[in-house]
Amino acid sequence: MIKVGVNGYGTIGRRVADAVSKQKDMELVGVTAAHPHYKYTVAQRKGVSLYAVDLKSLEAMKASGAGVKGTLNDLLQRVDVIVDAAPEDTGPVNRPAYEQAGVKAVFQGGAGDGVAPVSFVAQCNFGEAKGKGSVQVVSCNTTGLCRAIGAVDRAVGVARARAVLARRATDPDDVKKGPIDAIVLDPTTLPSHHGPDVQSVLRGLDIVTMAFKVPTTHMHLHSLILSLKKQATKEEVAAALQAAPRMMLVDGKSGFKSTANVIDWARESGRDRNDVYEDVVWRDSVTVAGGEAYMFLGVHQEAIVVPENIDAIRALAGGYTAEESMRLTDESLGIPHR
Amino acid sequence: MIKVGVNGYGTIGRRVADAVSKQKDMELVGVTAAHPHYKYTVAQRKGVSLYAVDLKSLEAMKASGAGVKGTLNDLLQRVDVIVDAAPEDTGPVNRPAYEQAGVKAVFQGGAGDGVAPVSFVAQCNFGEAKGKGSVQVVSCNTTGLCRAIGAVDRAVGVARARAVLARRATDPDDVKKGPIDAIVLDPTTLPSHHGPDVQSVLRGLDIVTMAFKVPTTHMHLHSLILSLKKQATKEEVAAALQAAPRMMLVDGKSGFKSTANVIDWARESGRDRNDVYEDVVWRDSVTVAGGEAYMFLGVHQEAIVVPENIDAIRALAGGYTAEESMRLTDESLGIPHR
Repeated sequence: MIKVGVNGYGTIGRRVADAVSKQKDMELVGVTAAHPHYKYTVAQRKGVSLYAVDLKSLEAMKASGAGVKGTLNDLLQRVDVIVDAAPEDTGPVNRPAYEQAGVKAVFQGGAGDGVAPVSFVAQCNFGEAKGKGSVQVVSCNTTGLCRAIGAVDRAVGVARARAVLARRATDPDDVKKGPIDAIVLDPTTLPSHHGPDVQSVLRGLDIVTMAFKVPTTHMHLHSLILSLKKQATKEEVAAALQAAPRMMLVDGKSGFKSTANVIDWARESGRDRNDVYEDVVWRDSVTVAGGEAYMFLGVHQEAIVVPENIDAIRALAGGYTAEESMRLTDESLGIPHR
Repeated sequence: MIKVGVNGYGTIGRRVADAVSKQKDMELVGVTAAHPHYKYTVAQRKGVSLYAVDLKSLEAMKASGAGVKGTLNDLLQRVDVIVDAAPEDTGPVNRPAYEQAGVKAVFQGGAGDGVAPVSFVAQCNFGEAKGKGSVQVVSCNTTGLCRAIGAVDRAVGVARARAVLARRATDPDDVKKGPIDAIVLDPTTLPSHHGPDVQSVLRGLDIVTMAFKVPTTHMHLHSLILSLKKQATKEEVAAALQAAPRMMLVDGKSGFKSTANVIDWARESGRDRNDVYEDVVWRDSVTVAGGEAYMFLGVHQEAIVVPENIDAIRALAGGYTAEESMRLTDESLGIPHR
């Protein structure tokens, strides 16, 4: 039984905590809380133990009547692996406490560059985590790109990847941010950071990315152009994607006309929080012409890294192959496993 | 003096009518009206003469108290050139009336494929309209692409163009359409029609486009990847764009972070209806790496074809060079002319 704690209970932390609870080989020891919020009330109703992030939070949480079992330092004494889902760029600040407690750590993509020795995507480099004290699960967009490009690369070879990322503006519960009626270049300079991020997993890949934000909350949409190393039909490219783990191929003619339709499908399907853990590739967009493969790829920013976090915990704990871990994870989350 | 009528008074018709009124060598004889609407009240206040599109509209307009001077057929008797800005795909329906009246016609990109013998972008192929009875000004996105790609092609050669188009969902005054919170693949299949549309002007260009709609009203944003025929620096590519007509280079560090900033600039600058007639290229996005040039290009869908319509009128009327016509048009609309 791997004892797991989750530090941070926002978009990712909440989801990883629930996913940990679903694993037969893991125990969710607790999650941290910063200040009173309805999400902690819901968590306690689910039987999740709370630990305050620090002494100040401990007072605030106690004052609100929430039962907390101690602080982050107490939690760290009781776990084998901590999942750091704390606010952006705080990984380097939090890491010393994890190291001092002798606890292995899974960081998120936004924790800060180089916070861990391995950038992690389960189906690409599970084995690289072996013997390490920490790994960094790459960001949602990078995860989506690594899975899809990796799949095509293994099947037919990718000489060059070009991607344009239309990013959702913010998450559905974030009422503070915009834009409302603008396309925001993110950044105005090129290329965006996503290319180098992908190269931290798919080393040596020639990739250039461009990114901008649009006023939606649900998913990122990538327009992918891949120069293939050998001739392949669109059916072969689609088959390579279909054969890869955590990949969902959808069709416009079945009603998948937009990102909203994908989320609607997840709600209809009874997915927890309408989460889509898979890369979503529009099968009818997959086109091959002049040695280049084109496709639209959807990335559910809140959900895609959740299975990766679970696999990262097992990779650090040791004793599993990538295939074993991914099968356990996928079965627990309702992801069709091939 | 070229006598001009405008059939259709929506997003484009209104703007072309006002632009015609500003030309010293043109007379706006009148515009057509379909049914009572505040836009016609405003037009009459500006001194614009109204003609009903048909007898049914004539009754409706008269009943509303609007002074109309006859029908479209009466208007056609009084003009040399008619600008067809009627609803989408009605070009083939309207064309016989123009031909019967012996009036030259300027159609819009949405009028229907092949409605005129020439696809028109002033700086690319003004001369091709010579002696023709009609031309079709290409769509806003196609105009934007032809100007920018044409400029780089003339300077350093473009071997291959790839473009991803994030399209504004609809125009600001269209309260019926969405989406609100979705990225809509438009279409889900690839490539989109914009590539072949560009080829109708820049013949033989290897171009592939992908398109989707986002919930904004102000501008389209193109992510452009151009394979160059010879080595060039980003400064040379930017200079080639800067030297082309109807091109505006902006910088993120000057506050141009989004499409909304471009429109805000136009409002601050006193542009009619905050219209941006130019291709808007983010100078700091212009990047050259590995023989490819990258850039972000903004297209104000309501405005970019307005100067093209004015030049198309002169091209059909005859007696002007492209340079003469574009100079007159640009001076009248406040477009910096190089």
